[in-house]
Amino acid sequence: MAIVTPSTRRSFIQHAAAAAAAGVGAATLPNLARAAAPFARAQGPGVYRYNLGGFELTALYDGIWYSPIKDGFVRNAGRRAVNRALNRAFLKPDVLPISITALLVNTGTKLVLIDTGSAGQITETAGLMSANLDAAGIKPDAVDVVVISHFHPDHINGIKTKDGDKVFTKAEIMVPEPEWAFWMNDANLARATGTVHKYFLNAGRIFKDIAGEVHRYKPGAELLPGIVSIPAYGHTPGHTAFALHSNGQSMLVMSDTVRNPYLFARHPDWQPTFDMDGALAVQTRRRMLDRAAADRMLISAYHFPFPACGHLTRDGSGYELVPVMWAPSP
Amino acid sequence: MAIVTPSTRRSFIQHAAAAAAAGVGAATLPNLARAAAPFARAQGPGVYRYNLGGFELTALYDGIWYSPIKDGFVRNAGRRAVNRALNRAFLKPDVLPISITALLVNTGTKLVLIDTGSAGQITETAGLMSANLDAAGIKPDAVDVVVISHFHPDHINGIKTKDGDKVFTKAEIMVPEPEWAFWMNDANLARATGTVHKYFLNAGRIFKDIAGEVHRYKPGAELLPGIVSIPAYGHTPGHTAFALHSNGQSMLVMSDTVRNPYLFARHPDWQPTFDMDGALAVQTRRRMLDRAAADRMLISAYHFPFPACGHLTRDGSGYELVPVMWAPSP
Repeated sequence: MAIVTPSTRRSFIQHAAAAAAAGVGAATLPNLARAAAPFARAQGPGVYRYNLGGFELTALYDGIWYSPIKDGFVRNAGRRAVNRALNRAFLKPDVLPISITALLVNTGTKLVLIDTGSAGQITETAGLMSANLDAAGIKPDAVDVVVISHFHPDHINGIKTKDGDKVFTKAEIMVPEPEWAFWMNDANLARATGTVHKYFLNAGRIFKDIAGEVHRYKPGAELLPGIVSIPAYGHTPGHTAFALHSNGQSMLVMSDTVRNPYLFARHPDWQPTFDMDGALAVQTRRRMLDRAAADRMLISAYHFPFPACGHLTRDGSGYELVPVMWAPSP
Repeated sequence: MAIVTPSTRRSFIQHAAAAAAAGVGAATLPNLARAAAPFARAQGPGVYRYNLGGFELTALYDGIWYSPIKDGFVRNAGRRAVNRALNRAFLKPDVLPISITALLVNTGTKLVLIDTGSAGQITETAGLMSANLDAAGIKPDAVDVVVISHFHPDHINGIKTKDGDKVFTKAEIMVPEPEWAFWMNDANLARATGTVHKYFLNAGRIFKDIAGEVHRYKPGAELLPGIVSIPAYGHTPGHTAFALHSNGQSMLVMSDTVRNPYLFARHPDWQPTFDMDGALAVQTRRRMLDRAAADRMLISAYHFPFPACGHLTRDGSGYELVPVMWAPSP
């Protein structure tokens, strides 16, 4: 094994730079008069396909909501501990990058979209989902079923355009019954304040005029062959996860049970303010992380880094994400 | 903290499945007569853009070469240890997934391609780079400079079509001088056997008839403003890495110094047979990993999982890759 000291380390690239500055070994530089290609200034498509048994899955990227972290953001951890966790992941302090990726499931007979992105109605850096659906070659009216995990805006806003038109014009919409009961209740709305109040108004905007068309499922129900809903309460009163099963293969769709993995998989007991019932959310998160790690299940999670798919392993008191290795074909 | 026992864990999804089977809480299933969208059966584009100072970088995915692992593949580690490392990364045993990602650098005045992919001449599951270059909106004749790290086929084959035509018709080609001296030497060719013999023939096929046009640089030289070559010998006699510098930001382009991170960043001392001088390659790998981790440098590595960009942290006797979090815009 080579012994590396700070001085050999420092000299490592300095040597190269010094040699270049001195003209030592400088190559003949190409003589190029042409203008360079312009900067693209745009990201590549966020579309990632993989298979689960006979299902074809497509991760559809919506963007990142860079959410400022205020004091008290994690009820039982200080800002310094949160920033340490961000720093360990090479993320900037005081900002939570909330990556958003929806999951499209082609079961072979139905095209099912699980959650719908932000529709560009939350932040300028998210709202790419419809462009990425298009890049995936899917027209919105080809979607047969939209399944909703919970009623936070970054999950339901994609159901409608800003003008209130339905985006997935031919799709049935399926929502968790307890989520509907909570967010569509006028007495709850009247009591709500701040951000939660806005979320109530937003849920009303999305669902009130299409209430008759919305199927309410009881978490635990199989929604379609191979798509089973799982009660995962705590983040919101009716927050729901999903298990996909096809040809003997299974996958856990964790929804918002764990959000940024560097914070909440590594620190499952942390209670962020966006979990409405912090203690229940921890219980749900612990149970689901334990299950995923113990059974080495393929998982998808809405706020994990795109393509939001991988595995989880136990590491001390927390869990580590092992992202899927991007493959050339699904 | 919630206590999770195996029995609560097991019951967790079983409950959902049992409830579904019993019809408890089953939602009204949508009545859908239409045919589903057909399977896409194709991966999304492998194009990822990010910035380094004033440079715009584009990771261009070429695919994965699934290389069977034979006994003796790692000279100083057994098959069982290698399979344990693969298993820890949720990869199949006895197969090394060699992901391939080339790096396009737009310096603002020059469009520079570092290594060129396999051109579909090695395995059916790689060869996507030209399609991804097209998806990135770049025509091959817009590339000003092709910089080569070393003469292995998966790095140089993209220079030419199968018919021997130049792909980047207007680009200067820059190669490491010691790499040229080794692979273009007929006495070395005459002595070579097996795979290495094939690599000699392949290098001749790519370079012999364009020898007069190829610029040979001495590793250590600055090739273009902000693109410095770094001797990184061991993998091959003239194997070269690169440092990019722009507006005070730096990045290490590690080439093949570390290949699959789950094997060779976690176990830097392992000597795979594809490192021609195993001991020297370990020394180079240790030095570069130490530098990247100590200085928290942004790194790119040709065989890391797409988009092949991130950071490295020290962990015990090895290093962990922290992949870049896919961002909505470069």
